[in-house]
Amino acid sequence: MTSCDLLVIARWMLPIAPENCAFDNYALAITDGEIVDLGVAEEVQARVSPSETLSLTDHIVLPGLINAHGHAAMTLPRGAGEDQSLQAWLSDTIWPLEAKHVNADFVRLGTEVALAEMIASGTTTFSDMYFFPEDCADLVATVGMRAQVCFPVIEMSNVWSDGVVDGLHKGLALYDHYRHHERIDIAFGPHSAYTVSAANLEKVAMYSNEIDAQVQIHMHENAEEVHEAQALHGHTWIQALDEIGLLGPNLQTVHMTHVSDEDLATIASSRTSVIHCPVSNLKLASGYAHVDKYIEANVQVGLGTDGAASNNTLDLFHEAHTASLIAKHENRDPTAGNARDTLRMATLGGAQALGLERKVGSLEIGKQADFIAIDTNSLNLMPHYDPFAALVHGNAGRNVSHSYVRGEALLADRSHTSIDISALTEKVRQWQITAV
Amino acid sequence: MTSCDLLVIARWMLPIAPENCAFDNYALAITDGEIVDLGVAEEVQARVSPSETLSLTDHIVLPGLINAHGHAAMTLPRGAGEDQSLQAWLSDTIWPLEAKHVNADFVRLGTEVALAEMIASGTTTFSDMYFFPEDCADLVATVGMRAQVCFPVIEMSNVWSDGVVDGLHKGLALYDHYRHHERIDIAFGPHSAYTVSAANLEKVAMYSNEIDAQVQIHMHENAEEVHEAQALHGHTWIQALDEIGLLGPNLQTVHMTHVSDEDLATIASSRTSVIHCPVSNLKLASGYAHVDKYIEANVQVGLGTDGAASNNTLDLFHEAHTASLIAKHENRDPTAGNARDTLRMATLGGAQALGLERKVGSLEIGKQADFIAIDTNSLNLMPHYDPFAALVHGNAGRNVSHSYVRGEALLADRSHTSIDISALTEKVRQWQITAV
Repeated sequence: MTSCDLLVIARWMLPIAPENCAFDNYALAITDGEIVDLGVAEEVQARVSPSETLSLTDHIVLPGLINAHGHAAMTLPRGAGEDQSLQAWLSDTIWPLEAKHVNADFVRLGTEVALAEMIASGTTTFSDMYFFPEDCADLVATVGMRAQVCFPVIEMSNVWSDGVVDGLHKGLALYDHYRHHERIDIAFGPHSAYTVSAANLEKVAMYSNEIDAQVQIHMHENAEEVHEAQALHGHTWIQALDEIGLLGPNLQTVHMTHVSDEDLATIASSRTSVIHCPVSNLKLASGYAHVDKYIEANVQVGLGTDGAASNNTLDLFHEAHTASLIAKHENRDPTAGNARDTLRMATLGGAQALGLERKVGSLEIGKQADFIAIDTNSLNLMPHYDPFAALVHGNAGRNVSHSYVRGEALLADRSHTSIDISALTEKVRQWQITAV
Repeated sequence: MTSCDLLVIARWMLPIAPENCAFDNYALAITDGEIVDLGVAEEVQARVSPSETLSLTDHIVLPGLINAHGHAAMTLPRGAGEDQSLQAWLSDTIWPLEAKHVNADFVRLGTEVALAEMIASGTTTFSDMYFFPEDCADLVATVGMRAQVCFPVIEMSNVWSDGVVDGLHKGLALYDHYRHHERIDIAFGPHSAYTVSAANLEKVAMYSNEIDAQVQIHMHENAEEVHEAQALHGHTWIQALDEIGLLGPNLQTVHMTHVSDEDLATIASSRTSVIHCPVSNLKLASGYAHVDKYIEANVQVGLGTDGAASNNTLDLFHEAHTASLIAKHENRDPTAGNARDTLRMATLGGAQALGLERKVGSLEIGKQADFIAIDTNSLNLMPHYDPFAALVHGNAGRNVSHSYVRGEALLADRSHTSIDISALTEKVRQWQITAV
């Protein structure tokens, strides 16, 4: 018998790797935040002597979900100025609200709401791109989640940085600070090719290559962006990034709704990743990212909610459900966007897209013990034939009972362990009374 | 001071009529299941002397949602045989499962799950179309919900009826039985124009006209249905129903995804209603019903989940959210499918489509006291700018705290009052062990 910190026994387990497997009465053993054993419950129980046992008798256990794109602090403008055109929404609501309110406190409060909501709905790893990334990273470190924190690279002077040079300086300091952190990776977050100059994108390419860091960028979000690039520059932004040398396994391109076959081939051959944000794309009428084509071309595809202001929740199960529905609709094929492929995109796909697949995205020996449990004794999941379908088509975000990162509980029996929800609720209420 | 049974004080109230209004600190007074007073809380409190008061200090109160199309008992095959083509799903999964299992007990159990799920997510009125409508109606009467129960009109002999004549006979007996019931309306449920003969649809038209009852029928669900009708008969099913004399204010046509301008004009001039089921349409890749065109033509449009087997939840807030997203996407316009219009479709629109607008669909003096409350102290609704956006874009089905029909609580502080959930859970588990 080997001793271990925690033994988790699950009625059903979906490790994601190997693909499409749902195991009955399975267990995983954890030591020092790592999965050290995994298998049929009786057999694992015979092999390990745990300090603690978590019995999840009516639950589906799977890797924690990976929300591969978002702006966590934007929970605070959630629901402000709805149902407007993108330009009106940005000009009349979001930008004035940000100009008036965004500071480090705003980011801490909005990010804490986001962490609480993501933990409660099954996300254990997320990617962020917003001002004051130091505060986001610090909060993530304290709360116990896992994150890729992208520091903003923006031409103009802004609340956080005095333009690109200052932003890169602060971002690289942040990168150094978290270089050896178990749960936090710092990445470059140039907003987009149409807001950051080619010269500055070249700087991002140079620095990120030098330190082998990830880069996340909004790309081909809607038809206008692509048409404007062609009209003004005679090429698409994907072609521009190819020339700059920014494409590659370290680049994550977010949205990618309007992409020609030629650009798709460029993305695939450069092994650039894609992040799919279907709810935001639908809500802003941006178009549809043809996920099936990317996957067919062996592009790594992750799933993201985008910011709460354009979603409006941070529930990645809901995002997965929408991803499945819109794939069926757009392909005119009810077998498209199936539950297994969609759940893979929300877990291992996201890990691969963010370059985190050696640590997370599946339940395998040697990986970090980031997992969640869904209580199947829930009205919307009754009865229960196929755990993949239950999770994706059953919209299981509301049925998450447990959420663990590195073997530590962040949510136990639906209660947060590292965030005081009633204090947080009161803080949001007070912020809204004084600020808006 | 007038005495009343119950006074409900709400932080926000959305009566739906008048349109687009969100009132702060509003109250409604109820006597004998009817709304007898409504207005600014302080003023109503000065006018009435209630036996009981319900203070909803952080809540949005609105009319109970109306799920205008579904097959309640089909919660039992929820999640069975997913991601298949429509034909394979029906032939390989649904029809064999129904042939093996459907009887009165199946209908009672599946319907009870559906009622519990709908009550918990804010639906107070629903339309049903399934075998053994007597059992559905009986359960609705006991549990306290409101329903339009459509008895099936099917050519072939089936588990419930020996074809059309027997079905009409049983259905009319059921109609007589509930003729004076406060919460239950019996309607005709011919499955579709392609499964019921013209002669039998004429019978439905004749009988329903005679007793002034509603008729609900699946119509133009996908392109194949429309193309086949034109290939085999040289006309669309809408043209066929027009000739038969079935179109009119008592007819509710469900799905309506592929409809020509000419057919739309026929629907509008006959004052036929439309029921929109976007999740089912997306999941089965059936197409999109152009809701905005129907509404522009003054067609009454309700919203429905369809059966749980093709959704997979019965959460009408989720349906409303999807309706909004797909409207924006299909119209390439982020201002389409706005939260106000969508919430109207889920309440008063449904009431009008089902012919129930004198009783329910809005909070007005003289209408039945069917209302729900949403707790805004919920992570996915924080902060809170616009109650319409919070409900629709915030996916508020998980945040329903109270659900009342005719002034009686069916859900209080998130607990069911008329369904024993743990007993129901155990019954479903036992059914699945023995049956599947």
